Amino acid sequence: MSQVLPVDAIQGMDKFFKMHLINSLSGIKSPCLIGTKSHRGINNLALFNSVIHLGAAPPLMGFMLRPLTVPRHTYHNILAHRHFTINHVTEEIYRKAHQTSANYPEQVSEFEACELTPHFSDQIIAPYVAESPLKIGLQLEETHAIQANGNTFVVGRIIEVIYPDQVVDDNGHIDLSELSAMGVCGLEDYYTLEKKERLPYARP
Amino acid sequence: MSQVLPVDAIQGMDKFFKMHLINSLSGIKSPCLIGTKSHRGINNLALFNSVIHLGAAPPLMGFMLRPLTVPRHTYHNILAHRHFTINHVTEEIYRKAHQTSANYPEQVSEFEACELTPHFSDQIIAPYVAESPLKIGLQLEETHAIQANGNTFVVGRIIEVIYPDQVVDDNGHIDLSELSAMGVCGLEDYYTLEKKERLPYARP
Repeated sequence: MSQVLPVDAIQGMDKFFKMHLINSLSGIKSPCLIGTKSHRGINNLALFNSVIHLGAAPPLMGFMLRPLTVPRHTYHNILAHRHFTINHVTEEIYRKAHQTSANYPEQVSEFEACELTPHFSDQIIAPYVAESPLKIGLQLEETHAIQANGNTFVVGRIIEVIYPDQVVDDNGHIDLSELSAMGVCGLEDYYTLEKKERLPYARP
Repeated sequence: MSQVLPVDAIQGMDKFFKMHLINSLSGIKSPCLIGTKSHRGINNLALFNSVIHLGAAPPLMGFMLRPLTVPRHTYHNILAHRHFTINHVTEEIYRKAHQTSANYPEQVSEFEACELTPHFSDQIIAPYVAESPLKIGLQLEETHAIQANGNTFVVGRIIEVIYPDQVVDDNGHIDLSELSAMGVCGLEDYYTLEKKERLPYARP
């Protein structure tokens, strides 16, 4: 049996049912830890599942931030230093990564609270996550205010990529199974990934 | 051994290696078929892997379109009718879904070319994909021009959701394994998903 929910039925649903359902509608995502440094020098970590690819030339990625009606440490820190890191979440660290989504006060570093280790390169002032095998360092490029709900879409330019040799093939493809990368649906449901098939570039 | 690629090394890489690597850096995504109707009434389908959740109140989703330096049927059709559909891709249809990414001329419907079936509701003028078990109907809300590379970020408001009863639990969570939903990394690598664990809302 299929459910057909028009918008009025959606609006009238139980608050938590609606939140979980709508959060799940975009399907599988990469949970990513975004690392930043505060204006006071605190190393901040936060979990996002809206990181997307924007283009290869120039190399750009973006992610969505919730409304600025409360302080968003990640946002303020990116504006302060214009650098942030994206760190992929593996089977080894997904429980610690999930714990970073708790509401810690500004003076607490999620690295310490969640037992993850900051790692620094000379290219990026923001901290990487040492335990994450695939790390990307970015510089703020632009932000967009989403009128409909007050979100902010943040665009960054990739300035450094760190990855283990054995997960990238000769053509540049990353093997997510080899990486033990996790997927997430909504805010709570974690999935493991198994490589199924590479399909060739499609032609009519 | 880890590779550390600073931006200069990235810029100097082989074009295809760079494209595959950068495309893969955002990790696992949901391949989604976006359905639209052209101003001439052709039912259009295109594959996107940048669909993200924006918020539950109002219920919003967004996706990224490549630069408008060539005609983008999906974009023009959304502007023409202000409606589009997002249809999830399962193990049963991912090869057909991938084939919609071929460069068909405007007068050809990808539904016919790729042997998928249009399905209509009275809420949305754009076609759904009958073979997709999880379908979302949206109305155009706003667009954002990404200055850095000429992409367009499209925001839609959810006005209808269609799903099979058995994949949504009492709390509104969608089970992607039960749905046989596929994941994709980059443009070519397809993954199957296995539910691992639901983690509770995190508290300090």
